[in-house]
Amino acid sequence: MRQSLARELNDLLERSRDRQLRLAVTGLSRSGKTAFLTSLVHQLRHAGWEARLDLFPAAREGRLLGAKRVAQQDLGVPRFPYDQALAALEATPPRWPEPTRGISELRLSIRYRPAGRPLFRADTATLTLDLFDYPGEWLLDLPLLDHDYLSWSLDQPLSNATELNHERRALFADWLDAVESLDPAADADEEQLAEIAALYAQGLRNAREAGFSNLQPGRFLLPGDLEGAPVLQFFPLPELSESERTALETLPEESVYRTLVRRFVHYQQHIVKPFYRNHFRRFDRQIVLVDVLSALNAGPERFEDLSQALATLMQSFAYGKRSLLSRLFSPRIDRLAIAATKTDHVTPEQHANLVALLEALLTEPLQDLRFADIPVKAMSLASIRATEAREVEYQGKRTPALRGTTLEGGEVLIFPGEVPARLPDTDFWARQGFDFRAFRPAPHSKGELPHIRLDAALDWLLGDKLQ
Amino acid sequence: MRQSLARELNDLLERSRDRQLRLAVTGLSRSGKTAFLTSLVHQLRHAGWEARLDLFPAAREGRLLGAKRVAQQDLGVPRFPYDQALAALEATPPRWPEPTRGISELRLSIRYRPAGRPLFRADTATLTLDLFDYPGEWLLDLPLLDHDYLSWSLDQPLSNATELNHERRALFADWLDAVESLDPAADADEEQLAEIAALYAQGLRNAREAGFSNLQPGRFLLPGDLEGAPVLQFFPLPELSESERTALETLPEESVYRTLVRRFVHYQQHIVKPFYRNHFRRFDRQIVLVDVLSALNAGPERFEDLSQALATLMQSFAYGKRSLLSRLFSPRIDRLAIAATKTDHVTPEQHANLVALLEALLTEPLQDLRFADIPVKAMSLASIRATEAREVEYQGKRTPALRGTTLEGGEVLIFPGEVPARLPDTDFWARQGFDFRAFRPAPHSKGELPHIRLDAALDWLLGDKLQ
Repeated sequence: MRQSLARELNDLLERSRDRQLRLAVTGLSRSGKTAFLTSLVHQLRHAGWEARLDLFPAAREGRLLGAKRVAQQDLGVPRFPYDQALAALEATPPRWPEPTRGISELRLSIRYRPAGRPLFRADTATLTLDLFDYPGEWLLDLPLLDHDYLSWSLDQPLSNATELNHERRALFADWLDAVESLDPAADADEEQLAEIAALYAQGLRNAREAGFSNLQPGRFLLPGDLEGAPVLQFFPLPELSESERTALETLPEESVYRTLVRRFVHYQQHIVKPFYRNHFRRFDRQIVLVDVLSALNAGPERFEDLSQALATLMQSFAYGKRSLLSRLFSPRIDRLAIAATKTDHVTPEQHANLVALLEALLTEPLQDLRFADIPVKAMSLASIRATEAREVEYQGKRTPALRGTTLEGGEVLIFPGEVPARLPDTDFWARQGFDFRAFRPAPHSKGELPHIRLDAALDWLLGDKLQ
Repeated sequence: MRQSLARELNDLLERSRDRQLRLAVTGLSRSGKTAFLTSLVHQLRHAGWEARLDLFPAAREGRLLGAKRVAQQDLGVPRFPYDQALAALEATPPRWPEPTRGISELRLSIRYRPAGRPLFRADTATLTLDLFDYPGEWLLDLPLLDHDYLSWSLDQPLSNATELNHERRALFADWLDAVESLDPAADADEEQLAEIAALYAQGLRNAREAGFSNLQPGRFLLPGDLEGAPVLQFFPLPELSESERTALETLPEESVYRTLVRRFVHYQQHIVKPFYRNHFRRFDRQIVLVDVLSALNAGPERFEDLSQALATLMQSFAYGKRSLLSRLFSPRIDRLAIAATKTDHVTPEQHANLVALLEALLTEPLQDLRFADIPVKAMSLASIRATEAREVEYQGKRTPALRGTTLEGGEVLIFPGEVPARLPDTDFWARQGFDFRAFRPAPHSKGELPHIRLDAALDWLLGDKLQ
């Protein structure tokens, strides 16, 4: 105990001297968290040698002396599987790393020469960088804290059939059938609730497979040790009329309705809050990764869904002094980056449009953040570049193209299409001019991991700490 | 919060009236926990109808009116997967249920007519029975609390090569190679420790596959959400000389040795203790299942290993007032059963020997329990009977045999051999006269699940509460 207190105090001291930084990486599933963190660690470890980090002044100026992995402080948090990820990228043929399933962590000790010191002076400084990786889906659960069960239930995107949710409802068809015949006033039958909850979780998985993003409750998708526990066996009650809602409040403890309420409350208290309390409020900086291109490829319903998911997710950052989050947990994130990933999957002249589109998607959250005076930057990047930009002649004109290897192993040379610089309108969707392809990582020589603008992200997130 | 307090108080009240009982089932992996609990629930639900429970007076006398599953209290504990287990047993061909991986729980509400009341009187009573299932490997971790890292390390069965552990050491060969070149005084390298710990965990898995039982730390075998966390990345340091040991104490915080010590302490505080605090101390009764027959089949080293594992495991029950366990957690288990499972895998006239052998295996723990005045009973049972007892004529003599279906689907009629009534000696092992076979469950009609003496176990564990 005394030892751990001493460590905490030392941490505090290091941090007050700006010598320690806790940087978190998040994003919805498949946004590229594992690739980002793997590349980030790799670039820092090889800075000054093979890594090309021209947009990261500390590296460009030769002040970054090296980074080594050191023992992390939280013994109960899985270590970020850097070596396994790197092994996948270095396999023949190269593979994308396995996605992580919960929170993980890795600590780097970075040696650097402070800026403005004469080169011949020997004094160096050390920045301890704690890196965290956690599922963006966990942030989608934040609004749950602002709801009671009933208002949450009514707020869910399935509650009423609308023009924009028929695809989503189709993916939840089995659950919708089952829940329709459920009487909220009946005595709760554990097995029945477990079955209906399993159908709901299956619907969430279907929806994720089909490219939807706005999926709640987040823990249903990655249950881990809680698989089969009643706390993960609730679901919304759709299409309740006004009179039905009023009747619910008088139901007895054993009723289906009250049972769902209890589980919802337990989920709030024992799943959502502990993440914010034990982890989130200790992060200093955050980067949110967004796979805009896949959503653009997937059509209007999914794109709109991503937009809603991002608005929800960003609520965890755009906190005013009186927000629920601030009152409960006093978080302290002081700088934020939002990055559209996989930018190597479109041709270079589209990159500016991609950033513009990302900003358009996030107009409101970005306004809130700026209003709350939290420095935020939107960017596009490729953590690990999988393609090469080329030019081809087409109908007598030189036109940009990408050369890469598809996941199946075929060499292709394509022009994926134009990224709209604003939110796509009906016209865009009608043209369907976008042909987004997934590529496998390119083979690379040891020590060098090609990227696009990862160095700019590094500078935004770390640069001021390496002055 | 208030609601949960009200529930706790209600629980307390119910329990003081003997109306609530928390019964836990444990055993090392593959001892038959899932089959036992599935059958127990099934028998209680069908008592008075198809279930044959002649050794369970409450059922025989027709006083057991029924049992239904009701909502469990701990929303964060997985529900015991009764339906899935039953579905496996009722499949064509029948399969043994999937083993559970951690703690799980199920609550039954049992209605009965108290003994001695006139049959025509309508008053019935209810017993709320909370059933828990957890890995016996977790109990093997109890002695960890009594050790510091160094004494634990020296206590591990691999520490020094002896006559009796060469098989075990062979299964840990990769780890032994790796740990040999590790310098406890060097600066800790996280990756190196993670790799060596992975080899240690692989050794534990090898050993379990090969039939060994005494495996520590228990959580290494079922890491769940802690997979990859530093708290599961320690291991013993074998073959330390006296002078090496003395030198260890002065090593700095960053050394390999101090890092292993920190992780060991974290494991004690955050893995071992919470199980005892949150679960174990709330159990009222306990049944420990032991697969004696498989160990008997596997030869002297593994049999001796089971014996040591059981001695360790039983320390959690044979607690005097001043034991570590009592001081830390005030457990309250007031009745204990120890059962040799799979008794249907030997012929009926061997059953008495099987109980005698179980008692011989547990001589010391049983003495301790009786000294501590904790009622304990040793028995043999088959939770789900997979064979039929037959007699065949062999060399002109009628001799007992078993008829059943092997896991591969072949019908066999065999005599597995004689079970020794005392601890087997060199002679027994030299004869190798035991031919234990695994059988698949027999098809059964709905409502009836054949067993051997499960009713006797029920009576010992529940009978007095149904008076």
